Order: sequence, then C-alpha cells, then structure tokens
Amino acid sequence: MKTTARELADYMGAQVIGNPAAVIAGLASPESAAAEDLIYIDSPRFAKRAVASAAQCVLAIPGLEFPGKTVLAAAQPKFCFAKAAAWLFPPVPAHPGIHPSAVVALSANISVSAAVGPCAVIDDDVEIGEGTQVGALCSIGRGSRLGRNCRLYPRVTLYPGTKLGDGVIVHAGAVIGSDGFGYVFGEGRHWKFPQIGTVEIGDDVEIGANTTIDRGSLGATLVGAGTKIDNLVQIGHNVQLGANTIVAGLSGISGSCTIGSGTVIAAQVGIGDHCTVGNNVTMGGRTGVLPGKIVRDGAMISGFPSRPMERFKEQQGWVSRLPELAARVKKLERENPARK
Amino acid sequence: MKTTARELADYMGAQVIGNPAAVIAGLASPESAAAEDLIYIDSPRFAKRAVASAAQCVLAIPGLEFPGKTVLAAAQPKFCFAKAAAWLFPPVPAHPGIHPSAVVALSANISVSAAVGPCAVIDDDVEIGEGTQVGALCSIGRGSRLGRNCRLYPRVTLYPGTKLGDGVIVHAGAVIGSDGFGYVFGEGRHWKFPQIGTVEIGDDVEIGANTTIDRGSLGATLVGAGTKIDNLVQIGHNVQLGANTIVAGLSGISGSCTIGSGTVIAAQVGIGDHCTVGNNVTMGGRTGVLPGKIVRDGAMISGFPSRPMERFKEQQGWVSRLPELAARVKKLERENPARK
Amino acid sequence: MKTTARELADYMGAQVIGNPAAVIAGLASPESAAAEDLIYIDSPRFAKRAVASAAQCVLAIPGLEFPGKTVLAAAQPKFCFAKAAAWLFPPVPAHPGIHPSAVVALSANISVSAAVGPCAVIDDDVEIGEGTQVGALCSIGRGSRLGRNCRLYPRVTLYPGTKLGDGVIVHAGAVIGSDGFGYVFGEGRHWKFPQIGTVEIGDDVEIGANTTIDRGSLGATLVGAGTKIDNLVQIGHNVQLGANTIVAGLSGISGSCTIGSGTVIAAQVGIGDHCTVGNNVTMGGRTGVLPGKIVRDGAMISGFPSRPMERFKEQQGWVSRLPELAARVKKLERENPARK
Repeated sequence: MKTTARELADYMGAQVIGNPAAVIAGLASPESAAAEDLIYIDSPRFAKRAVASAAQCVLAIPGLEFPGKTVLAAAQPKFCFAKAAAWLFPPVPAHPGIHPSAVVALSANISVSAAVGPCAVIDDDVEIGEGTQVGALCSIGRGSRLGRNCRLYPRVTLYPGTKLGDGVIVHAGAVIGSDGFGYVFGEGRHWKFPQIGTVEIGDDVEIGANTTIDRGSLGATLVGAGTKIDNLVQIGHNVQLGANTIVAGLSGISGSCTIGSGTVIAAQVGIGDHCTVGNNVTMGGRTGVLPGKIVRDGAMISGFPSRPMERFKEQQGWVSRLPELAARVKKLERENPARK
Repeated sequence: MKTTARELADYMGAQVIGNPAAVIAGLASPESAAAEDLIYIDSPRFAKRAVASAAQCVLAIPGLEFPGKTVLAAAQPKFCFAKAAAWLFPPVPAHPGIHPSAVVALSANISVSAAVGPCAVIDDDVEIGEGTQVGALCSIGRGSRLGRNCRLYPRVTLYPGTKLGDGVIVHAGAVIGSDGFGYVFGEGRHWKFPQIGTVEIGDDVEIGANTTIDRGSLGATLVGAGTKIDNLVQIGHNVQLGANTIVAGLSGISGSCTIGSGTVIAAQVGIGDHCTVGNNVTMGGRTGVLPGKIVRDGAMISGFPSRPMERFKEQQGWVSRLPELAARVKKLERENPARK
Repeated sequence: MKTTARELADYMGAQVIGNPAAVIAGLASPESAAAEDLIYIDSPRFAKRAVASAAQCVLAIPGLEFPGKTVLAAAQPKFCFAKAAAWLFPPVPAHPGIHPSAVVALSANISVSAAVGPCAVIDDDVEIGEGTQVGALCSIGRGSRLGRNCRLYPRVTLYPGTKLGDGVIVHAGAVIGSDGFGYVFGEGRHWKFPQIGTVEIGDDVEIGANTTIDRGSLGATLVGAGTKIDNLVQIGHNVQLGANTIVAGLSGISGSCTIGSGTVIAAQVGIGDHCTVGNNVTMGGRTGVLPGKIVRDGAMISGFPSRPMERFKEQQGWVSRLPELAARVKKLERENPARK
C-alpha cells in the first residue's frame, strides 16, 4: 500500500515539514530503508542515523530537521510509527477456502470468508468466523468457537470448547485449553482433580509461540480483550487475566490468580497460585509473587519474594555491600571496650 | 454417567446425610452447578457458597449441614471429589481405528482397540497398545512403544525408541526423546556428545503441554510411575525421576540428576546437573539447586542457592531489613568511643 | 559403521595400548557396553567401571591400564569420544524424496537429494538444499531458504523468510521467525510495533525442542555459526547472537541484545533488552542481566542483578550468615557504652 507524507501525517496527527507529496510505501530502520520507506527517530541522539539513511521521510519529534528530507513531526514518533504500520500493513485478508488436505468434520461451521490451511484438523461442532485464518497443521478441538478475523499461525492447538473473540492472533505451537495441573494425593497416588472447565480469550488478544494456557478446572480461564502474551508463557487453570495486560516471555501465572487490566508483567516472572493482582501494576523482570498475595492497583514491584521496586533496589544495594558491612561490624567488635 | 448419593458415598467412604437416592451426574463449582452436580466444600468459610448453589448434593467435612441439600460427609472432601471425578468421568474409550489421513508404516503394530487421529504419522516398528489414543498430528518415531490406555493429545512428538508405560497422558506439543544438550569444545568448535540413549516413561505419568524430555546420552532418561509433570518443563538427558513426583511449570532439571519418589518440585525451579535429590523432598517455587548437590530425603528447601526453607525465610527477613541494619551499624560507628 | 582401535586412534590422535585390530562398532557407557562398543573414562575414579565393563576398548587418560582390554590413550578422552561419535555415526543421509502426503507449493525449489517427511507443508518460493531433511509435520513458510545437510525434526515451524545455513539441526516443536513482542500503548490500546524483519541462522547451529526465535522488527535476528541453543529458550527480536555460543534451557534473551562469540549462558538465565554481552563471557545458572547492561569480554557473572561470580558468592555467603551478623550487631548495641 502506498500513501503520501500528507495523508499519513493527517492520519497520525503529525506535521509535515517538507514535501507533502513524498511517497511512503513501507517502514524500515534508518540503515535498511529505501527511499520510499518511512523511518522514525525518537531522540536527537539518533539524528545522524536519519541523516545517513536513504529514506526520504523521517518521523521525528518536533524540532528536528534533516536536509533534503521530509519530516513528519509528532510528539510520540514510535507510537505514530506503530499506527502507520497498522495502516500500511493491514492484516492480509485470508485467501478464503479450505485446503483439500485439511480434515474438517462435517458438523463444523466455517465461514465462507475464512481460510483453513493444509493438514489442519477441525473437529466436530467447531465454529470459525468471517475472515479468520487457521494455519497449516493446526488442531481445533470439538466445539471450539473462533470469532472473526482471527489469525492462527501454523501448529496451534485448541483443546475442545476453547473460545476466541475477534481479531485474536495465536502464534505457532501455542496450546490453549490443556488440562490444569491439579492433583490430590491419597491412597498412595495422585488423583487428578477434575479439569473440565473452559478457556475464553477476548478480542484482539495476541498469544506468543509455544505459550500454554490451561482450561479452568470447574470454571473458565479468562484472558481479557487487548491483552498481549509473549512466547513460552504458562497461564494456569482458572486464571482471570484482565484487559490490555502485558505478559512477557517465560513468565508463569499459577492457578486461580486474578490479574487486573493494564498491568505489565516483565519476563521470567512467577506468580503463585490464588494471588490477586490489581490494575496497572508493574512487575520487574523475574519478580516472584508468593501464593495468595494481594498486589494493589498501581503497585510497582520486584524481587523474590516480591516487594516495592524502590525497596528492592535499596536492599539489593546493601546486599552488594554486605561484605563491607560485615567488615565494619567486625571492626566495631574489635574496638568494643566491653570485650577488652 | 449417573449415580446416586448412596453409591458415590459408598465408593468414596463418605456418610450420606439426607436423600441417598439423590442423583449425581456431574461435578461443578458451587456457582456453576446444576441440580444434579456434586459440589464440595472443604472449609466452613465457604458454607454460604454451598447454600446458594443449585446443587442438591454437597461433599463436605463432617458437621456441616445445608438445609434442603443432601450432604456427603468425608474428612477429605477435595480428595473424595477427585476420586468421584475418576468414577464419573472415566477416560473416554478410544473410538478405535486409524484415521484415513494418518500415515502409518506397514511395520507398525497397532492394537485394534487403539485410535490414531487425523494426520498422525506413525513410523516403522512402532507398537501401540490396547485402548491407546494417539491424537491428530502426532509424530511417533521409529520403534517407539506405547502401552495400554495411553492418551496422546494432538501434536505430541515421540523421538525414535521412546517407551511409554500404561495409562500415560501426554499433552499437546510435548516432545519426548529429543537430543540432550551436551557438547565438548575442541579444535575451535563444539562437538556433539553422542545422544544415542532412550527415554522410558512409567505407568500413569502425565506430561504437560509443550514440555520437553531429552533422551539419555548413552543410557536412558527415566520417569517413574505416577509422576506428574506440568507445562513447559525441561527434563535433561539421563535424568532419573522417581515415582509419584510432582514437577510444576517452567522448571528445569539438568542432565544426569537423580530425583527420588514423592518429591514435590514447585514452579520455575532449576536443578543443576548431577544432583541427587531424595524422596519426599519439597522445593519451594523458584528454588535453585547448584550442580552436584545432594538433597536428603524429606528436606524442605528454597532459595538460590537452595537452603532449608525456614533458614531461607529467616535470611530473607533480614535482607528485607538490611537498610535498617546498616543504619544501626552506622549509629554504632558514630557512637564508637574508639573513633573519638 | 565398524572400525578398528588403530583407525579410530589415528583419527583421534590417541595411542593404542593393546590390540590395534580390536573392532569398534559403537559407543556406550561402561555399564551398557557390548564387546565392540568403545567406552571412555576421564578420571581414575571411574576405573572400576571400565574394568567391569564388557567393552574391549577403553578411551582413557594416559597411564591407565585395564587387564585384557585395549586402551586408546588421549589427554582429553571426552573430547575424543565426541569426535569418535561424529565418525561412527555420521548424519544418516536423507532417504531423498518428498512423501506423497506432504503439501508442497509448485514454486518451491527442493533439491533432489533432500527429503520431505509425511504431512510436511512447504509454502511458495521455499528453497531446500542438498541432503537436507525436513521431518514430518513441519511447516516451512513462504520464501524460507534452508541450506545443505540441515535436519529439521518433526513439527518444526519456520515463519516466512527464515534463512538457515548449512548443517543446521532444529529439534521438534521449535518455532523460528515468530513476531517479536513489541507494542506501543496509545489511544487506550496496545499498537503492534511492526515485526517485519527476518531471522538468519548460521551454519552448524543446533536449536532445541520447543525453543522460539523471533524475527527482527525491522532488521534481522541473527544466530552465529556453531552456536548451540537448548530446549525451551526464548530469543527475542533483533537479537544478534555470536558464533559458537551456548544457551542452556529455559533461558531468555530479550529484544535487541548483542551477544558475543564463545559465550556460555547457563540455564534459566534472563538477559534484559538492549544488553551488549562480549565474547567468551560465562553466565552462571539463573543469572539475570538488567536491560541495557554492557558485559565485557571474558567476564564471569552470576546473580540477579548480575555481578562478578566471585563477588556473588561472597555476598551470598554473607546473606547466609545474615541472622548471625544481625545478632552480632544487637550484641554490640547492648554493650554500647553510649546507651548506658
């Protein structure tokens, strides 16, 4: 898709300084850009990279100029760049139809505008909405419902009864609806607690490659609209995840946690079972939240066990100086008149 | 499957208080239950949830009563609930047969009562026992042997020569028998140490979604009967895992570890190579065990490096108060007569 | 493949003490070896295991002798054992050809000596080099290029445009080229930052089961030649990973990190975004590197936040004795004359 600096600037709410008719056909980094690619610079530190770029148009904070280039000035260049991507690269519409190698149950109800890839397996009573693409080698369990304009990359597995809203993206290898990890020990062995609930994924959720989301034991595991989950994340049974929340790679959320909306969970975080985490919480990388904890709205936490981020930093600073602190104690002991 | 309060109570060893002929057809949470669902309450704190439930039968600790409801009284309601699940929801017998889209080697030996799903790929000399279900899109490597009544969910991979006992459950995306991670550096590059061993999984083991279990380098990687492994767990080459052990999500057990029976490994635990962990050990979430460590039977450990759980808590308590401890040292220094 | 003690010793640069014509046909552990298997012993501590073994030939450090056995003496027996494996077990050449159940685009260019397994899906414009094996149920996205003698185990996914060098091994369930995890929040929702770059994997790289490697956002994610990546590892977008580097299981490298060559990253390590890690760095298990950090060549680090390994050990030693240190401070306070 091609556009002009003027059109794109109007869409993004940016100012054009230079040639409003300059053509923009793509997005790139300054180093890899061709003339018709838009680049962005969000700090004067990177100005040289823009100057040296082949790109004709630069999205930049107001006040920066680049000789011979057209500037689209905006307060938040990175945000505008992401918006431009949504416009320049709209989701490729599915090439509708069911690949002849796919195995589709007769009772499945698949929109004529949906696409089902090679060797995908669609079980009984599945419903697939308009414009949704199911990639090659996906397995969609009995009675699952996929909304409109979803995109399942190859090799996604939905267990029976999984529900996806509209515009959901699921990356390769993700597994949604597997049994939760719950057993009760007795009579010399582990008995499986019933894992007969479901999973419901809200609109515009994105789920990373090889991530796993377990079904509820008796109720539903929920992921709120607009939430984004990275690769290799584990979401336990009965978790209630709010809207527009971020969960980065290799993090695990244990069973029966409730997590609010707008919360940011960095990488390798672990949250114990039955925690209640509020809205707009920020967890630093590798935060470990003990089971049953309550984390209030807006908290910024870090460390294991988790604590306020500033407090964590202060304590870690002292851990770093512990050998010296111990030496000071030893000196005090040597000089202690009570010992003499 | 339908039963009565009397029948189920006899099976579970519970007392019926109320109508022994009350029908029980399912299991549910108090909130989602229909009249014929059994619910359970293991604490008087949740009594109101039972009272408000539509369920007619309540499994509860002795002494609780709910007007108009039939009570199945037992000392361990959650355990009885899990037992009831095993009775009410026996594994669905395979719809026997090989889906026409599956690719099955002529030399494979598949029980007539087994089921092989769509687009599953079964290599030479594979043996599949009675009642075992191999889901869609699974890949079963040459010479693998699956026992009776196993259930492989879609998209499981067994490398050649993998052995599963009876009643093994493997969730979607799991990989069993991949090469161990072993190299020897020399002549400017990493040489692959031979990874030519096998994997043997005992009876009634459950393996979570996207979990990986490496084959032994020269011998066998072993998982003992009744052991339960969560999602996204990594089990290294040559690991010997005991019976009825629990390994929670995102944990990793490095190569050549021996882990006992009845041990509980919480989430995000890491165990270094060549450790020997005893029976009935408990590891708290995120425990990190240094390579080569010996952990004795019944130990309860936590932290990184791992230490006794009580000791870990005491030390962490002091880490939390380190800034204050440092201030006390500073005060002592100020008041130290030797400095004056 | 069969050889003699003499031939193998010459290849490895070892000395034969005993029968140079002794036949060697395999590799094994001392306990599982048959007569024609080679075993190795790299410490006199294990001499008894060699003595008790059925193996006729023992690879050992110079100076060890085993009555009735032929010794291949070398300073680095384990390294020689790995070299022997490369000779005795050369990669099994592909049984060339495309399985009839595979779904291959007409525009794909597949070497006549390559092999494509059952139900593999090869998209448009894919190129597959000589001797490369693509396992069952793999999905190879549009325009991907695989070099020569690569081996993709079953159920690997390459997103469109992925490039593999020669001799690359990818284990089951790995996903290469998935979208990076980048969003910009604005107007009440997360906007996807463009993830339109590529992934390039160098020669002789090995990638573990269920590992995920994201494509670059605007440029390329790079993995250098000879680098080995374990199972369940996450490599973020734009990461530049050097040559002959090791990344152990459950580790995560966040977006836009540059990691040098010859570096060793142990298990469960986390590296924050935009870090620059030098060559020949060693990171202990569970090391956590804060975003933006620079780690110099040859550094040995550990802990979270990361610090020099020796310093980490010293500090952790004091953490372990913190309760006692606190008691010493309390004693000093009690005896402090200023308080009296």
